[in-house]
Amino acid sequence: MANAWLTGAMKTLQQMGEHAAIAALTKNLKAVGDDCAVLPLDAHYDLVLTSDPLISGVHFTPGTDPEQIGWKAAARVLSDFAAMGADPQYLLINLVAPPEQDFQTLEKIYEGVSKVRKLFDVDLVGGDLSQGPTLELHVFGVGRVPKGAALLRSGAHVGDILYVTGPLGGSFSSGKHLTFMPRIKESKWMRQSGFVRCMMDISDGLATDLRHILKASRVGADIVSANLPMVGTLEQALFDGEDFELLFTVRAEDADAFDFQCLEDLDQQFPRIGKITAQPDVLTLDGVVLARKAFEHFKD
Amino acid sequence: MANAWLTGAMKTLQQMGEHAAIAALTKNLKAVGDDCAVLPLDAHYDLVLTSDPLISGVHFTPGTDPEQIGWKAAARVLSDFAAMGADPQYLLINLVAPPEQDFQTLEKIYEGVSKVRKLFDVDLVGGDLSQGPTLELHVFGVGRVPKGAALLRSGAHVGDILYVTGPLGGSFSSGKHLTFMPRIKESKWMRQSGFVRCMMDISDGLATDLRHILKASRVGADIVSANLPMVGTLEQALFDGEDFELLFTVRAEDADAFDFQCLEDLDQQFPRIGKITAQPDVLTLDGVVLARKAFEHFKD
Repeated sequence: MANAWLTGAMKTLQQMGEHAAIAALTKNLKAVGDDCAVLPLDAHYDLVLTSDPLISGVHFTPGTDPEQIGWKAAARVLSDFAAMGADPQYLLINLVAPPEQDFQTLEKIYEGVSKVRKLFDVDLVGGDLSQGPTLELHVFGVGRVPKGAALLRSGAHVGDILYVTGPLGGSFSSGKHLTFMPRIKESKWMRQSGFVRCMMDISDGLATDLRHILKASRVGADIVSANLPMVGTLEQALFDGEDFELLFTVRAEDADAFDFQCLEDLDQQFPRIGKITAQPDVLTLDGVVLARKAFEHFKD
Repeated sequence: MANAWLTGAMKTLQQMGEHAAIAALTKNLKAVGDDCAVLPLDAHYDLVLTSDPLISGVHFTPGTDPEQIGWKAAARVLSDFAAMGADPQYLLINLVAPPEQDFQTLEKIYEGVSKVRKLFDVDLVGGDLSQGPTLELHVFGVGRVPKGAALLRSGAHVGDILYVTGPLGGSFSSGKHLTFMPRIKESKWMRQSGFVRCMMDISDGLATDLRHILKASRVGADIVSANLPMVGTLEQALFDGEDFELLFTVRAEDADAFDFQCLEDLDQQFPRIGKITAQPDVLTLDGVVLARKAFEHFKD
């Protein structure tokens, strides 16, 4: 046991991979596993908390338009709220920059943050500026959701229809990852509609993120390739990261009513991309088991 | 005008300094200026939010005991809550580490975080792990305070007695900056006592931080050097950073009752280090105007 522990402990992050390291570090914590932490607040609401980093060379390339850096940093956090059907209220930002950083770039980053937060009536209420080796934003979001109404990854049931809010794949090459619109409006409608049982946002790619739903809900899923809204290839739609669309399920017998109501209220319809199946953790594409492949930090 | 703006905009952070850059970036924001943001929550409580970075090479040296890194990261945020008389409830941590980082060090950092948060019954409820050039922790804190009861920097009045909770100076050389106890217990008592009118924590040095109170309260202050609880020299007690003691004021006519009640309830008394004076923004030491000198990120 001691040796096994030592072997594990001496591993580097590159050897372990991001998801294994997070799982090991957070195994004893409360409320970890969904896109946001959901905690009791008062008789009417739950408190919703999340945080996301945006690091030069990892989440954007040096030379990216600073307004887009700010937009992405804030929009990622708002997408976490959308993933839960929650209403974001406040942001705090820890900014890290090297001493030689020009101030004008930072002002433009804040302008990008302001654009997205003003669209959704979210206030920037604090944060910090510190010296460090490279440009980074750490955005912390605080919001709320009516008590018990958060849409969790654990809500999918066998037979549910699987939906996605928009096109998948090619987000890095198209630049969508810097300019995407967080699905706050759609998310709020979905929560209020009462039709949606399970939801998350797609940040690591459809196939990878869907597996989180399968695990949390103890179900399987089959994706119908012909129904996938693709920007590029099927592989890109399945495995590319940072689409920031919502992935959600609706009870099969409600699906027609859901589609009708979407058209009435949102003036759009979302593609049905598959269904929830019985075999836990088994993800199939057109009935054939899909191999794992995922973008993951640290892993080669 | 255009030229003046361009001149300002082309400055680097090193040329501007941390405080000027933060002031410029946050000039239009809500709730910025105290150690935490205080926002309306419900009929009984205000919501209290804060965030602090801890960056290798800036806030700790590479090779620092990882448990102490974790302790300091969490304790700094709790000290922000203490500074407001607020009760911390939840933490989220964005961890940044290079791919070659060994996992055992990260586990020990989390153990350090756990030690301090368990002492004060605070839950770690979320966060993120991401690749980056150096080891960093960004800790976000969420808590609350009874409505309107937060102790602000703007609460000092002419004639108030100035107090500090403990010894000042030499925090870096003694290692106190890695092992200090956040003054949560004392802070809660002070809020409940009703005697304390104004409070903040000392992170950038007594003289620098006291000036924030002077500015927010539109008053001056005189420090009595003979009463300063010093670890090293007078200069260190005035200008060294990261003591994380509380700096607060009590109405002069309440000071004796306050001292008596402290001894009764906390079994200790705090030194009276000076008083609040009438001339706005003027800080004196034994009646002589004190020159500015401060630790500040980015500035040489």
